[in-house]
Amino acid sequence: MNSLVLDFWFDFASTYSYPAAMRIGALADTAGVVVNFRPFLLGPAFKAQGWTTSPFNLYPAKGGYMWRDLERICADLALPFRRPDPFPQNSLIAARIALLGLREPWGEEFCLEVFRTEFGEGQGIDDAEAMRGILTRLGVVPEPVLQAAQSDDNKARLRDQTEEAARRGIFGAPSFITAGGELFWGNDRLERALRWANSSGA
Amino acid sequence: MNSLVLDFWFDFASTYSYPAAMRIGALADTAGVVVNFRPFLLGPAFKAQGWTTSPFNLYPAKGGYMWRDLERICADLALPFRRPDPFPQNSLIAARIALLGLREPWGEEFCLEVFRTEFGEGQGIDDAEAMRGILTRLGVVPEPVLQAAQSDDNKARLRDQTEEAARRGIFGAPSFITAGGELFWGNDRLERALRWANSSGA
Repeated sequence: MNSLVLDFWFDFASTYSYPAAMRIGALADTAGVVVNFRPFLLGPAFKAQGWTTSPFNLYPAKGGYMWRDLERICADLALPFRRPDPFPQNSLIAARIALLGLREPWGEEFCLEVFRTEFGEGQGIDDAEAMRGILTRLGVVPEPVLQAAQSDDNKARLRDQTEEAARRGIFGAPSFITAGGELFWGNDRLERALRWANSSGA
Repeated sequence: MNSLVLDFWFDFASTYSYPAAMRIGALADTAGVVVNFRPFLLGPAFKAQGWTTSPFNLYPAKGGYMWRDLERICADLALPFRRPDPFPQNSLIAARIALLGLREPWGEEFCLEVFRTEFGEGQGIDDAEAMRGILTRLGVVPEPVLQAAQSDDNKARLRDQTEEAARRGIFGAPSFITAGGELFWGNDRLERALRWANSSGA
């Protein structure tokens, strides 16, 4: 058993999940921590807080700030950044495919490619056509994956994963949870989460 | 004119303003940046977002996380931490006194002492008695200050300052604004704000 593990919970629609996803691989390698990608849906968490869309849309001052902040963060990281329209994108189909892919060798690269498409290029990620393009670029034959992604089994898995997120206290994305259950929220907490995962406390 | 200036906007009731206030002096000195302490009231900003109390009370998962996160942050900084009860504290009288004090030599130390009392010791800061104790510890005769703090003039100054915060796009605390108008929100953005203030772009 390796206790140097960090669960990385994210929603493809989440803006700050983009820089977190782009950074986590190299940082975790350096820290000697193994990362589990855990896609889930923020929608139910937002509904529980009485929100019908992203809080960045509901609260314009906060939303305006977030876009500027994300732009600065991406510039610091030399990451391409382009705001998708509409925002937020519906992340359901991408999350279902990611759940399948993360049992295969192409899962993490799929996740990164979805984020790059959405926030690096500002392209939509909410339909089968977009997914076909990404899978094809990764050398994965799309149709069997699209079909399996929409199976009742896989739909139930995403619901379970989303319920697990709520049970574990997650209310936003990205979130990081150590093997010992310590929760960190936000791209800006990634380094601290890795240090926690790598300390004896786990 | 020194353009290496950073405005530090905070509400005494704001939890993350505590570590920001405790850190900003030394970090700004190192960065060669002059800091202006700008106390204001978050209440009107929260009301504009439809909130009747702190979002940390309205959203329990987020609130529970915030207290744990703040505890970790204070431990990392070796800052004492104790949660005040009730939370949030009413910060009106402290903000009015701070506005006066920041025209005098004792203003910044008063602000730090309010934060220490509230979040380091978990004591109330919402009445004249608490303010008398803090002023006395700083060697300031309390009564004239308390009286001037409650003058119509000074009340209007705090309203103006709070309206200015909203005009400048502030929706939470702590916030930092450079001479060029660049806004940063959150204790975790303090270092970035100082680097921005110290860059040619101001």
